[in-house]
Amino acid sequence: MTNQIFSQTQAEFSLIDWIAGQQLRHRAEVKLGIGDDAAILSAPGFEWVVTTDVITQGVHFTAETAPELIGRKALAVNLSDLAAMAATPCAAFIGIVLPRTYGRQSVEQLYHGLLEIAEEFDVTIAGGDTNSWDGPLIISVTLHGLVAPDSAVRRHGARPGDWIFVTGALGGSFDSQRHLKFVPRVKEAIALRKTVNIHAMLDLSDGLGSDLFHLLNQSRVGAILEASDIPIHADVTQGLSEEERIRHALGDGEDFELLFCVSPEAGKRLQEFSPVAVSLTKIGEITLQPAACLRYRDNIQALTRSGWSHSFSAIP
Amino acid sequence: MTNQIFSQTQAEFSLIDWIAGQQLRHRAEVKLGIGDDAAILSAPGFEWVVTTDVITQGVHFTAETAPELIGRKALAVNLSDLAAMAATPCAAFIGIVLPRTYGRQSVEQLYHGLLEIAEEFDVTIAGGDTNSWDGPLIISVTLHGLVAPDSAVRRHGARPGDWIFVTGALGGSFDSQRHLKFVPRVKEAIALRKTVNIHAMLDLSDGLGSDLFHLLNQSRVGAILEASDIPIHADVTQGLSEEERIRHALGDGEDFELLFCVSPEAGKRLQEFSPVAVSLTKIGEITLQPAACLRYRDNIQALTRSGWSHSFSAIP
Repeated sequence: MTNQIFSQTQAEFSLIDWIAGQQLRHRAEVKLGIGDDAAILSAPGFEWVVTTDVITQGVHFTAETAPELIGRKALAVNLSDLAAMAATPCAAFIGIVLPRTYGRQSVEQLYHGLLEIAEEFDVTIAGGDTNSWDGPLIISVTLHGLVAPDSAVRRHGARPGDWIFVTGALGGSFDSQRHLKFVPRVKEAIALRKTVNIHAMLDLSDGLGSDLFHLLNQSRVGAILEASDIPIHADVTQGLSEEERIRHALGDGEDFELLFCVSPEAGKRLQEFSPVAVSLTKIGEITLQPAACLRYRDNIQALTRSGWSHSFSAIP
Repeated sequence: MTNQIFSQTQAEFSLIDWIAGQQLRHRAEVKLGIGDDAAILSAPGFEWVVTTDVITQGVHFTAETAPELIGRKALAVNLSDLAAMAATPCAAFIGIVLPRTYGRQSVEQLYHGLLEIAEEFDVTIAGGDTNSWDGPLIISVTLHGLVAPDSAVRRHGARPGDWIFVTGALGGSFDSQRHLKFVPRVKEAIALRKTVNIHAMLDLSDGLGSDLFHLLNQSRVGAILEASDIPIHADVTQGLSEEERIRHALGDGEDFELLFCVSPEAGKRLQEFSPVAVSLTKIGEITLQPAACLRYRDNIQALTRSGWSHSFSAIP
């Protein structure tokens, strides 16, 4: 961790000092934040849940994306990973590589987007490293959350007969720019965790048709999804055929909704009284047979790990 | 944290699964490592010390640098930050952005370099995120170390009269490629911490003439350095004048040696019986007056934050 000086035509300023000055609150678990060789975290009686995600220009955003939205997304994708473990976000470390052409105003806008969502989720920026170079913009975030000992929700506990739920609706995230503005399901995950025993959970980043396999493989089970039950987001173009719209929901990716498995009894309780404001939809069930299938208009097709494009095209 | 699939002409392989398979040991504090949405760290009675450093092609290494050395350096610079706090390294998270042209062999070489130094310092790779893009190579590492509560060595405790020491010798790190092969002073920092009360410490990444100011500013003190006492590395070209060689030692950077302050009594003890194999050299003393000065051939010159180049040129 270094206090890199960010050179400008007119002035020099320490980006790290500036960020430290922007933060009004500071979580108690961050015993030492920005300014030394490293930060110090302290939280007796808890476990730290840690995730890292890198977002890059040309892949996760474009040269035209507003800096505020880039900063927001860099933290939001990590918040989504912690939501998938039902952890409470706490402290973030920001590694950033700036194009040399990036002006101070753009950097401040980027950090304003980042700090705004940090404040919204009570996250302290505890440290970072800033460099500049001749290439495009890259942001790497490492986010720390807390859980009570042994209470993080893993991917590996799905059982045959479990009901499979998703929060919200899927598809069209890229084209609509929703991937820059989504609300990570942190509060929802914690509320669900308090209400029912969640056997397995993850967040949908690559797309339901692909992420589902992480959960199935780690749980050593299979699944059958009901195509007509998959909630299709209003962002998916309305004029398309039903089949095309389901393809988008399965394969577009960057939904950042939660996919989780609970017992049928717990599933019924969630359907009767949901602890969250966002919609919860049962989209299928876990099977003993370790294969992923999709039922569509009374045809059952195999889903493959490579996603919807190869498997789903076989559906009549 | 996502299990990105790394596409190859002939085969696909999960880089994250491959890395997990390469690790023979797993630290007890890493309760859950690679494979879920996030990792879980657990260490009751300790504090976590966390640092992040990003290294980029064209800045910290070149397109010609051997991948093993790039991987090694990415972890080594973070190990050096933890050394500066006298923390015991424990768990690393690796964010990596690969050029699309990067073959599987190069990626494996890169990780072999990284895993080798990880094993040497008993660090578990606990998670990561791998992407590829059209740009050059970038590696972002977030490293977690442990300290007993309230025992991390900070930058802010230097006191007037303290003696200033450096480990090893300075200068010529870039030209000699030492910046790719240096040994982070982790063991030395812990041994020193056990032997004496270290008032303040940091690692030299930008160069003595520049990093010194972080320590002085945070401690609200000044310093007078003895130019002729600064240990000049054998990597600095021998044919140069003494003044030129001192400039290199002050300004080249990437030494990754420790700069630390102790009481004169503790300093004498270190000179009489050093607990470390690497050389320890007293290079100056802390002053009440908050300015940094350099004594050279009976002239005292002001050092400025912008380094040696502007200030030192005034020396006759």
